[in-house]
Amino acid sequence: MGISAIGIDLGGTAVKIGLVDRFDGLVEQVQLDTEADEGPEHVINRLAEGVRLMQSHAFAPVSGIGVGAPGSVDWERTTMRYPPNFPAWGVVNVAEGLRKRVDIDGPIIVENDANVAGLGSAFFGAGQPFDSFLMVTLGTGVGGAIIHNKKLFRGTTGAAGEFGHLSIDYAGPPNRSGTTGSIEAYLGQRFLSRYARYRLLRNPDTLLHQTAGEDMEDLTPKLLFEAAQAGDVAAQEILAWAGHKLGRGMGSLVNVLDIRKVVVGGGVSAAGDFILEPARKALLDGVMPGLRDGVELVQETLGNQVGMLGAASLAFAYLDEQDSTRTPAP
Amino acid sequence: MGISAIGIDLGGTAVKIGLVDRFDGLVEQVQLDTEADEGPEHVINRLAEGVRLMQSHAFAPVSGIGVGAPGSVDWERTTMRYPPNFPAWGVVNVAEGLRKRVDIDGPIIVENDANVAGLGSAFFGAGQPFDSFLMVTLGTGVGGAIIHNKKLFRGTTGAAGEFGHLSIDYAGPPNRSGTTGSIEAYLGQRFLSRYARYRLLRNPDTLLHQTAGEDMEDLTPKLLFEAAQAGDVAAQEILAWAGHKLGRGMGSLVNVLDIRKVVVGGGVSAAGDFILEPARKALLDGVMPGLRDGVELVQETLGNQVGMLGAASLAFAYLDEQDSTRTPAP
Repeated sequence: MGISAIGIDLGGTAVKIGLVDRFDGLVEQVQLDTEADEGPEHVINRLAEGVRLMQSHAFAPVSGIGVGAPGSVDWERTTMRYPPNFPAWGVVNVAEGLRKRVDIDGPIIVENDANVAGLGSAFFGAGQPFDSFLMVTLGTGVGGAIIHNKKLFRGTTGAAGEFGHLSIDYAGPPNRSGTTGSIEAYLGQRFLSRYARYRLLRNPDTLLHQTAGEDMEDLTPKLLFEAAQAGDVAAQEILAWAGHKLGRGMGSLVNVLDIRKVVVGGGVSAAGDFILEPARKALLDGVMPGLRDGVELVQETLGNQVGMLGAASLAFAYLDEQDSTRTPAP
Repeated sequence: MGISAIGIDLGGTAVKIGLVDRFDGLVEQVQLDTEADEGPEHVINRLAEGVRLMQSHAFAPVSGIGVGAPGSVDWERTTMRYPPNFPAWGVVNVAEGLRKRVDIDGPIIVENDANVAGLGSAFFGAGQPFDSFLMVTLGTGVGGAIIHNKKLFRGTTGAAGEFGHLSIDYAGPPNRSGTTGSIEAYLGQRFLSRYARYRLLRNPDTLLHQTAGEDMEDLTPKLLFEAAQAGDVAAQEILAWAGHKLGRGMGSLVNVLDIRKVVVGGGVSAAGDFILEPARKALLDGVMPGLRDGVELVQETLGNQVGMLGAASLAFAYLDEQDSTRTPAP
């Protein structure tokens, strides 16, 4: 067993805390209810308990803690800002809260969960072979991260990588924030479900009338995948439609970033090739000919461990940087 | 006078060679015909002559040479690859060719001209106040560069920044390379001229029937600007249409890169606020609310000196990197 860190995947309903070995990956883990509505103090106390439990499993002092958190995180990577699904949290310095409660000699770093997924993929997942890649997470919303030369590209304030807000149609449908034709307006769960519902309501030939109710109010991406897998052509066509939009956005971004690898993770990616095959084709069609060599779209394989592994990777990446004596301490 | 470098702006018809002081900017310059059809040896000989002339004006040894060149340049930044408008050039190592011919103790760096414009803006132009910005050059085509923390973001092969190939409409018109709805398919000179011609052919109220010929075969962006400036409403509307497309592309990219400053240069940007005012509005509309603080679009002010200044900046940037002892010599 080599150098290890603790990775915390802080979600709105559940928190996963893992002891992660740099080379062997996830060694121990515990899952708790977040209990976000009990407030930040309560939740950070729970995180600290989990950290101590993981420390008790470690053979040597752990070298740092990483936290993947939803929503916006500040540039210094200590503080969550108005996280969605954390009622009344406002601005919370999670790193400082943990630092007070746990005995650890090393960095404590908080980062946006999509960025954490990208780093997890780069260190432990499908992104390992690539120096640079675009991470796309298909979940309730569409998130993303840009990994460039094995590091997170963070932009000006740490918010870079919001692939879900890339627009592929300036006159397209609005998303939650009002921007038009963004990838999220096609592939976000609510948007995809709504599109499928309208498209299928008058189609009596689809299985989904049985599984999603006659008026299809219960239609979800999951039901779409199941129907597609059962051979339902209408469901397959809708997933292909979504995959096409996804690929077009990726191709557009490949042209601008000259980053030719894409890793897709998150729940919706479980639809696999029903979405990803059309996405691959649209991706290549959208890339200018001079950049097509080496373009590749692969699926993340880490499943829901990616959050813990990626969070621990925040600490590993920090320590790598320290080795090259460049970055100030967080 | 401080540290100086020689900047070469190698265009298809003319080459500009300047002696550039790190702090005072352009000190001396000479312009030659490129004579590209005489072949690479001939042209590199002419470049070397120009370099020697500039050296003769320098009070101290110049510290390097930068070359801005059209088309694709290799990752090592020595070699032009199949440059457009350089008949039968193929693959030409310009840096090596110059190194053999001139007596200079310092880097010789070749870089794509849009990237050079970005660096020139960062060191000497409208980009100086910004740590990170998106450079957009509106010329015959639409080029671009990403400056991140005062450095060029080069992607995987050095081709990053092709803003003209960002798509804003997956079902939009194809550009030269066949990708659809790219910024260049709206704002490239030929595309903009063609759009304006079709839109105006049956509009008898526009000045352009007089300046661009009855069938408008001679319509150019320049004639459009002149008509707009003379108060022609039809011409103004077309430029606003183009500006709107431009801004939408910028907004989309701001969301993904979290880089909130945009500098626009190149010939077409001479249309100024007829294009840039609508672009500013569309840019803000396209940026997600959480990233709108500090979004800014400014016009480059260096005019056609930006090529020489940017090329010399390649050498300055290289020397800065050397100071921080990180990058291998080119």
